[in-house]
Amino acid sequence: MYDFKVDKKAGNKLYIQVFEGIKKMIEDGKFERDQRLLTIRAASLNLSVNSSTIVKAYDILEKEGYLYKIVGSGCYVAAEKLPEKFHFEEEEDSGINYSQLDLEEVINFASATPSSELFPLEDFKYAINSVLERDGGEVFSYQDPKGYGPLREEISRYLSEKNIKTDNIQIVSGSQQAIDIVGKMLIKPGDKIIVEGPTYSGAVTSFKKAGAHIITIPLEKDGMDMKKLKSTLEKEREIKFIYTMMNYHNPTGICWSETKKKKLLKMAFKNNIFIVEDDCMSEIYYGDYNPLSLKSIDEKEKVIYIKSFSKIFMPGLRLAFMALPKELSETAVSVKYMADISSSGLNQRAFHYYMKKGCIYRHLDLIRKTFSQRYAVMKEEIKNIPQLKIVYEAEGGLFFWIKIPEWMDSEKFYNIALKKGVAFLPGRVFYQKNDLSPYLRISFAGVDEGEIKTGMIYFREAFEEYLGKRGVKSPLV
Amino acid sequence: MYDFKVDKKAGNKLYIQVFEGIKKMIEDGKFERDQRLLTIRAASLNLSVNSSTIVKAYDILEKEGYLYKIVGSGCYVAAEKLPEKFHFEEEEDSGINYSQLDLEEVINFASATPSSELFPLEDFKYAINSVLERDGGEVFSYQDPKGYGPLREEISRYLSEKNIKTDNIQIVSGSQQAIDIVGKMLIKPGDKIIVEGPTYSGAVTSFKKAGAHIITIPLEKDGMDMKKLKSTLEKEREIKFIYTMMNYHNPTGICWSETKKKKLLKMAFKNNIFIVEDDCMSEIYYGDYNPLSLKSIDEKEKVIYIKSFSKIFMPGLRLAFMALPKELSETAVSVKYMADISSSGLNQRAFHYYMKKGCIYRHLDLIRKTFSQRYAVMKEEIKNIPQLKIVYEAEGGLFFWIKIPEWMDSEKFYNIALKKGVAFLPGRVFYQKNDLSPYLRISFAGVDEGEIKTGMIYFREAFEEYLGKRGVKSPLV
Repeated sequence: MYDFKVDKKAGNKLYIQVFEGIKKMIEDGKFERDQRLLTIRAASLNLSVNSSTIVKAYDILEKEGYLYKIVGSGCYVAAEKLPEKFHFEEEEDSGINYSQLDLEEVINFASATPSSELFPLEDFKYAINSVLERDGGEVFSYQDPKGYGPLREEISRYLSEKNIKTDNIQIVSGSQQAIDIVGKMLIKPGDKIIVEGPTYSGAVTSFKKAGAHIITIPLEKDGMDMKKLKSTLEKEREIKFIYTMMNYHNPTGICWSETKKKKLLKMAFKNNIFIVEDDCMSEIYYGDYNPLSLKSIDEKEKVIYIKSFSKIFMPGLRLAFMALPKELSETAVSVKYMADISSSGLNQRAFHYYMKKGCIYRHLDLIRKTFSQRYAVMKEEIKNIPQLKIVYEAEGGLFFWIKIPEWMDSEKFYNIALKKGVAFLPGRVFYQKNDLSPYLRISFAGVDEGEIKTGMIYFREAFEEYLGKRGVKSPLV
Repeated sequence: MYDFKVDKKAGNKLYIQVFEGIKKMIEDGKFERDQRLLTIRAASLNLSVNSSTIVKAYDILEKEGYLYKIVGSGCYVAAEKLPEKFHFEEEEDSGINYSQLDLEEVINFASATPSSELFPLEDFKYAINSVLERDGGEVFSYQDPKGYGPLREEISRYLSEKNIKTDNIQIVSGSQQAIDIVGKMLIKPGDKIIVEGPTYSGAVTSFKKAGAHIITIPLEKDGMDMKKLKSTLEKEREIKFIYTMMNYHNPTGICWSETKKKKLLKMAFKNNIFIVEDDCMSEIYYGDYNPLSLKSIDEKEKVIYIKSFSKIFMPGLRLAFMALPKELSETAVSVKYMADISSSGLNQRAFHYYMKKGCIYRHLDLIRKTFSQRYAVMKEEIKNIPQLKIVYEAEGGLFFWIKIPEWMDSEKFYNIALKKGVAFLPGRVFYQKNDLSPYLRISFAGVDEGEIKTGMIYFREAFEEYLGKRGVKSPLV
């Protein structure tokens, strides 16, 4: 979190070093306006100094106008000393820094992207050439901003097998674009929205850029903390929507219970707010359990359903769709048009051809089989390290959400592990606040069984090194 | 503009009919907040009633709170009586209503999209299959948000031949996305930006949605009215950027003079504001004239250069790029990532293969030849109708900007022409204000020489019908 080190052998006082280190970070623009600094305890762990050193440093920072304090809450970065910046400030936690790393040299448990050997290349190549032959120049003309008609129809059919009856389909260039469109459609600066904590930071950052104030409701093992949600809905007005991933949630893998799903929908109807159901993984179940989609019981047209084909098909295709309440479907077309006119005609048509031939079902069978094996192997490996706790055994999805001991800093651990040759995502990436969060997301989407085993050896080595550095006797040896 | 008719035989007074008609339009949400109503004169022409009728109707509307007046400026729609709406209000002038019409049954002079028989399908199919063979699954994995590296290099090389030296290339999914990204990077609600009048409405709508206040500087035959620009820059603070199409401007076809280009750049340097140079057509010149790009003389890195491949290659590919000032290039990657992660890997790689083989130059030669023939044919046809005036003979680009007689309503004429079997774009599409604007954009991009001739016959018939309706003796027969 803090990017400097305290040198205990240097001549100047430790609290001055801390003061100067944080001052420089603020002046260099490494914080955002109103960003909360580490708590006293977290900062003292992070910099390996006493709490009193941090307290003194924060006091001077406050006097000099670098931060302001809110009693009972913490210290926040003041706007005045931040450098002038463009409107769009890069977010450290937007996910881009981790998941788009060039990780060719390491075993990558960070990415939740299916490895490319799972892509149905030959079939898809056939689909591409078939549509080029069939449609000629039409493929490269302007496409309908709503999406290629026959693809929309095919998707409606696909959804009807999941008991979702709708023909309000909007094709988009990946689920990130769907999120961008939702923000543009619904958020006015100052509006409030509700998200799960933890959640996918790419969504949160996008909603924030659109001007939303984010309210986080903690996620329990069967869904949101419904009491907190209820009291929030009673207290706050102007909630625009609730953003949720109900099935094999990212990053926790949690599936909401049917009871909570239905309760949530009821609340949305009652309060007349939308629910954004981001479903990128409900097809990836390993048992018989085929989880319920909220959209399938959305009698009052309040659910905006988003499905990406990145996880269950191929991410580079950049295809996803939204199933929209009727009242939003026209607005969505306009917003899509203003964003990029339409999605690639070639990709839409080839994917339609591929779906229509039924190939998608064969492909889903294949990936379910492959991923369930990887899931089993990784689960066993994790269980071999007693300090790690799998928070939720999803029997589906593409990752594990692991609790590490409270005192560990997941980012420090990340850096050690990277040097050992394995990458994952530190828990902080999925939270709004910059607290230490003793969680990791470990994905098996992009690695085969051999790589899982090797990666977990590196992981174990990194863990031991971290324990060793902290003077904890390793229980792993 | 007004969507109702005044019935002179009805029992109630005409000004009451006008009052009720406009009242209903406001209550139905057909106007935006603060939208200017037609001037007295324009409204009286539009509804075929006396000016005094309009004056009375507007007076009652004001008393009832439907509009407010600004002396010397006009009447504006008041916010209070508008219906509650979602944040994103569809704009009638966003261009979507015209250019994306299903116009299969008519001869389409509205679209500026090259007809698909010009697409180099066989070559591109070869490129697609070559990269599928060469790169395999890589093609469908996540791509670099900045764009496929070798494509960015190839584009730098391409630009260097236009004397643009830069390697800050950002690949995007079409120029509309570039515009969206510019808005997200630079515009904070309330910021001001400058555009040419007339201009491409898809850009204006996007900038408005991002919160910009639009200042329009009239376009003269050699570029913006520089006096007005200068006084605007002196008067207004917080101008974020100037959006311009300097070469074969849309819709007028105008090329800025080199003098004005250099002047504009100097002003931008002096006032420290960016210039967004939207260049989709500088390759489409018919003589030897290869127009100067502002980016090629941008010594102080203030020009954001946007180039689409929709007009000079194929629109359905959804590929464009931005050449960015260094200080913006990182921000652009983040914004692109939040918009849709990355552009299609298949399209980027195939297009790179195609460019690298030099095919793009052959293609440009072909389209220049084809379009210059169409240009000549259409020019002759237009000149055969004495009431039409070509505003600017560009010897390049894809359309003519035609002045029609002042008293004509370009939208009424559009509707008559559509019934006759020919479509074009009424001038109003390219203006912010809802005044009558006696201009049309007639494009030959998507029609062959035979269609141009037939279409112009329909056009002539529509013109005669309009003249006949107005009781003007047709000079065409």
